[in-house]
Amino acid sequence: MTVRAPRAYLVCVGSELLAGQLNTHQAWLSVRLRRAGFDVVGESSVPDSIGMIQTALRRALNAADAVIVSGGLGPTFDDLTREAAAAALGRELRFAPTLWDAIRKRFARYHIAVPAENRRQAEVIQGATVFANAAGSAPGQRLEFRWKGRQRSLILLPGPYAEMSPIFERALPRLAARHARGVGVASFSLRLLGVPESVADEKLDAVRARFPAASFTILASGGEVSFHATMRARAISTAKAALKRLRRAALNAVGQWAYGEGDTTLESALGARLKKMNLTLGVAESCTGGLLGGRLTSVPGASAWFYGGVIAYDNSVKMKLLGVSARLLKKYGAVSPECAQAMAKGVRKAIGADIAISVTGIAGPEGGTKEKPIGLVYVAVDGPGRTLRVRRQDIHGPRETVRARAATAALGLLKEALDARRKRA
Amino acid sequence: MTVRAPRAYLVCVGSELLAGQLNTHQAWLSVRLRRAGFDVVGESSVPDSIGMIQTALRRALNAADAVIVSGGLGPTFDDLTREAAAAALGRELRFAPTLWDAIRKRFARYHIAVPAENRRQAEVIQGATVFANAAGSAPGQRLEFRWKGRQRSLILLPGPYAEMSPIFERALPRLAARHARGVGVASFSLRLLGVPESVADEKLDAVRARFPAASFTILASGGEVSFHATMRARAISTAKAALKRLRRAALNAVGQWAYGEGDTTLESALGARLKKMNLTLGVAESCTGGLLGGRLTSVPGASAWFYGGVIAYDNSVKMKLLGVSARLLKKYGAVSPECAQAMAKGVRKAIGADIAISVTGIAGPEGGTKEKPIGLVYVAVDGPGRTLRVRRQDIHGPRETVRARAATAALGLLKEALDARRKRA
Repeated sequence: MTVRAPRAYLVCVGSELLAGQLNTHQAWLSVRLRRAGFDVVGESSVPDSIGMIQTALRRALNAADAVIVSGGLGPTFDDLTREAAAAALGRELRFAPTLWDAIRKRFARYHIAVPAENRRQAEVIQGATVFANAAGSAPGQRLEFRWKGRQRSLILLPGPYAEMSPIFERALPRLAARHARGVGVASFSLRLLGVPESVADEKLDAVRARFPAASFTILASGGEVSFHATMRARAISTAKAALKRLRRAALNAVGQWAYGEGDTTLESALGARLKKMNLTLGVAESCTGGLLGGRLTSVPGASAWFYGGVIAYDNSVKMKLLGVSARLLKKYGAVSPECAQAMAKGVRKAIGADIAISVTGIAGPEGGTKEKPIGLVYVAVDGPGRTLRVRRQDIHGPRETVRARAATAALGLLKEALDARRKRA
Repeated sequence: MTVRAPRAYLVCVGSELLAGQLNTHQAWLSVRLRRAGFDVVGESSVPDSIGMIQTALRRALNAADAVIVSGGLGPTFDDLTREAAAAALGRELRFAPTLWDAIRKRFARYHIAVPAENRRQAEVIQGATVFANAAGSAPGQRLEFRWKGRQRSLILLPGPYAEMSPIFERALPRLAARHARGVGVASFSLRLLGVPESVADEKLDAVRARFPAASFTILASGGEVSFHATMRARAISTAKAALKRLRRAALNAVGQWAYGEGDTTLESALGARLKKMNLTLGVAESCTGGLLGGRLTSVPGASAWFYGGVIAYDNSVKMKLLGVSARLLKKYGAVSPECAQAMAKGVRKAIGADIAISVTGIAGPEGGTKEKPIGLVYVAVDGPGRTLRVRRQDIHGPRETVRARAATAALGLLKEALDARRKRA
């Protein structure tokens, strides 16, 4: 039985979004709304114009049950979301003395006099529930009302991510409960590596056919593929039971490439495994120039399993710090399986890690030849124990694509080394 | 005299944009449209639904002179932009045999049989100009027509960046010429480092007051500030002359913090200076774990001035590869000005670079103490010559903010070292 999903619409306010600032809220909010059972039916970015914000809000309220607005709650003249939302709903803005007190206290803590314009941030739309903002001075607001005869929720969120995200997380459970009433939702995501999107898509065809009540997304990005399924039913227990079967079917179809579920990143999944296996890691990077180490250390607590490594961009560094011989470089070149292996061995020895991974390649836009074209990359893994792996990877795309995928390829080879170790253990 | 700017609207098609995929086209297209003199008045992301795409197109055509659509030109059943645009305009789709030939040739080059569904990519909206796609099989399309009595342009672009961007660059000159007719546009951007956005904003107040005909944007991101000004006039020569004065006024106001203009990044500006000064660079990274090297090597041709460095995440690596003494680490700790200096000196010596920069800090979420809180960072620069600089930086925000700004702070200190060298020279 198919159950109608509640609909959500995003309105992102701010002229900067139409002048080069990356809109990261759209992706972040979409993922969370989908997981909570919403269909995200659209997003609009609007400049700081009261008329344009109002039009966008009306259209969003026509189209969706829940409208999520971010930005435009600051103190300056061009922060107009409060006014526009009040006008769209035909409600008044009311000054809330308790909010004003909180804002003044916040400024006092930093020994700053409150500018008079901040007073606007204490204005609340009539009937709104206020969400205190722990990380800034603009509170969030929630309104629940009928719009053309239908139940609607409007959530106003501050623009900065650090302020927006915790308020949204607090607002989401009630939003889902209100609009997904009578709809049980369960969802899961699977993260895959080492398989092209089209192959994963084909393998998952049978799963989709077997579960017509579920909705699916498949995303490819940076050499990885993620698969997301949402199951809806009248009762949450029914949805959960169906999802359990769906999950099993999906793992049967593509489990061999899976490295994690949910929000897990490749680097955090590998880090968790290294920690559990009590192994330490080092890196030697040529064309990636530090990107690989940068990704690994993005994982909180990486110091439990990551030692560090060497950025051996110039051949002199490969020789000085990694002990790669001039003879090897002359005979095979820096972009060769031999050099990748020597780099991994060299860094493992230099820093005393259990495992080392290395990358060397031609990122472009210069430096390609017929024999060694741009995009040619070798990755190697030395360890655990005496195993030494090396792989060639041919990557198409501009410099940053080659570099990013080269780092991913190195992590992929590390995953295989850990998989093999587990099998033997 | 103020001249009305032509308006542009973006429609980004694809359900993946409402399911977690980052919308990077919005920022990229906005910047280029603004530079060409357009006001970007809105953006909508719409799912792969013919009705929703059509509605979005109609609204966009009501609101703006030029409507830029990306995505939905692929071969599969859920690629619906062609059909939706034809329907919105009340025109027919026509099969173009020459396009079909080109698509078949493209597949033949890769020795792949053309799937029958790709035939749809040879369909052209009646009256459209076709843009060949060198990087994929979906051609771009341009339509010029009257809509409710007004001149309009509609550009359809394929979704993948590598296909979208070259087609858009080819379409832009005519778009600007058509809608900016009688409007001369000149614009420039200034990139600043080491100044808070609010201070830059205040310093630029007088510039804005002096040039009321210009439009301005100021963006803060990752510890950097960028300032953009567009000048419009009836004649391009007038706009250029006014912009020249505006540029001078802006440089007077904030030039001390400027590191570049236009699309220049901090790392590419520094790289160009190092190359010109014939100096080589190395890095030693603790909390950034490779991010700094990753940024520096994002610059094409970095091998002319970047040697590499050491990711000294664990203290053992600081000792083994950088020669930081156990005594120093015990006495001052790894997050100290002493350690930052020792790291910079150590890596400079180890790899033989002219200059070395280092970063050490507490990125969080764990590891903060009252004396050394999360966000405490030290950066140091050793060289050129005998100068040794160190700076403390207190960064607020989550782990990745601390790390990204720590890398920027290190680059900032390098900039100062190069500035000082230039002054002395």
